[in-house]
Amino acid sequence: MYLANVMEQLDTSFLAEAFSSSLPLPATLEPNFEGALRSVLENPGSLIRPKLVFQMATAYGMDPANAQRLAVALEYFHTASLLFDDLPCMDNASERRGALCTHLAFGEEGAILTALALINRAYALTWRAVAGCPQSIQTQAMSFIEGCLGVGGLLNGQSFDLHYSGLPRTLETTERIARGKTVSLIRLTLALPAMLGGATDRELQEIDRISEFWGLGYQIVDDLKDVLQSASETGKTAARDVELNRPNIAAAIGIRGAVQRLTRLIDLGDKVLGGLLVRRPELEFLERLRGDLQIELAKVTRDSFVLAEEGRL
Amino acid sequence: MYLANVMEQLDTSFLAEAFSSSLPLPATLEPNFEGALRSVLENPGSLIRPKLVFQMATAYGMDPANAQRLAVALEYFHTASLLFDDLPCMDNASERRGALCTHLAFGEEGAILTALALINRAYALTWRAVAGCPQSIQTQAMSFIEGCLGVGGLLNGQSFDLHYSGLPRTLETTERIARGKTVSLIRLTLALPAMLGGATDRELQEIDRISEFWGLGYQIVDDLKDVLQSASETGKTAARDVELNRPNIAAAIGIRGAVQRLTRLIDLGDKVLGGLLVRRPELEFLERLRGDLQIELAKVTRDSFVLAEEGRL
Repeated sequence: MYLANVMEQLDTSFLAEAFSSSLPLPATLEPNFEGALRSVLENPGSLIRPKLVFQMATAYGMDPANAQRLAVALEYFHTASLLFDDLPCMDNASERRGALCTHLAFGEEGAILTALALINRAYALTWRAVAGCPQSIQTQAMSFIEGCLGVGGLLNGQSFDLHYSGLPRTLETTERIARGKTVSLIRLTLALPAMLGGATDRELQEIDRISEFWGLGYQIVDDLKDVLQSASETGKTAARDVELNRPNIAAAIGIRGAVQRLTRLIDLGDKVLGGLLVRRPELEFLERLRGDLQIELAKVTRDSFVLAEEGRL
Repeated sequence: MYLANVMEQLDTSFLAEAFSSSLPLPATLEPNFEGALRSVLENPGSLIRPKLVFQMATAYGMDPANAQRLAVALEYFHTASLLFDDLPCMDNASERRGALCTHLAFGEEGAILTALALINRAYALTWRAVAGCPQSIQTQAMSFIEGCLGVGGLLNGQSFDLHYSGLPRTLETTERIARGKTVSLIRLTLALPAMLGGATDRELQEIDRISEFWGLGYQIVDDLKDVLQSASETGKTAARDVELNRPNIAAAIGIRGAVQRLTRLIDLGDKVLGGLLVRRPELEFLERLRGDLQIELAKVTRDSFVLAEEGRL
């Protein structure tokens, strides 16, 4: 949603087509499973992540066929994580990508089996995308994927997110959770294609730091919106996250503190991005991602101001 | 359970140790997630599959470190599939490997995140185990894994299993489901290590057929036991599977028909195995796996006879 501006630069219809067609379905599928798979594959969402993967990969000279495979693979991992997150035992969501959640339309077993099919296919596509790379890069890439998606990354972040109620409500806690849950997938999106394209260690370090600053930044935007929406609708700043016992940076350190932190994260990202672009001007598309974060900052600042003026904050 | 005899030939304590230690846990894990992971990793089960993987891989000359990685990886895939199968939305089980199911001890979210951690790690271990193989074998192996675990294999079998109620109760239906659910994992266990060790196409075909005959055979043993247990306990042959609307070959074609089919599958397997062992005597350990199936056949035949004598069948 936020990143709509990024989309302008590149026609993404080929990615929508690739998302839908990269998991070929055998003829003899069980009908409920087939229904769940088709409904997920036919509704690719905004495709912002796979577009970034594709841009990053081709900027580093990866051939378009493999760049597309990697883009779809990472979006399949992401989509699978959403299918699991939405389950009753996790976030108990009812809508996703403008439609009824898969577990509500096709049962929890339909959602789980579909998520596992996406993960299975994502590994196969990733494997194929990296097969031509030097062995040392392949090894590095697999460790990186494992770190981002595994016990030390996404899964641990999700578990802390679900068991937040016993933790101290501080900036440190909320950012640790965001590092696991949000930053892990942004790191994969930006750093993995660069790694496979032969980025230097220094560049990878810079891209990794940018991923962290922006990942934490987007999490703050999300959290601020949650708090501001509650304030706007109910006149209370008790965010939905707070009611659900979920981490929210703006609830932990206040709206003003969260806006300041977001401003700081954008500044930190700018410093790293500046150096990176001098050496790699073909990564200029990252400027727009950064610009979108700035636009979000302006929006939440304005909304906070309006709500404060109206005495609803 | 059935295959206890196979275990005699090789001390498997190193595999139990490898199962427990091949998913290193970071220091900062969320406590509920950590509890779920530890309880699963500390209770490896019978280890029959990883032992077969290890024997197969080393028989084909794979170095022991990689054979062990592959053995643990396939057991992690298998364990993950059990964690999902046991969920309330699937088989709604309460016990596994002699302990309370993970979703009952650590919540459904704990079971799901643990299963995903096992899958993530299993792919990393597999990747590492195959990294030294020629590229063409790596590609073949990844396709094979995807086929066994993905939409065309395990996942589809599981979905048919869960949605059996609308299907015709025939040998064809039950065996199609068993091919997806049971045979897929046995194929991985026996054929993948042979493939990575450079087995010829002919050998792979033979191992694949043996996997199918024995996989279907073990499924019949399971189904017969389910029916015979019901008959023994309640005097009715309405098996638990039938009450749960689950496929059961003995319920579909009768006890006598199922025993005949099992006998036929063992015979079919023997023909293929005989030829394979002439050319590959180092696969002699497969004889014991075949022998265990024969022992199971003898047991179910005896039990059927006794129950029939007692008028309970």
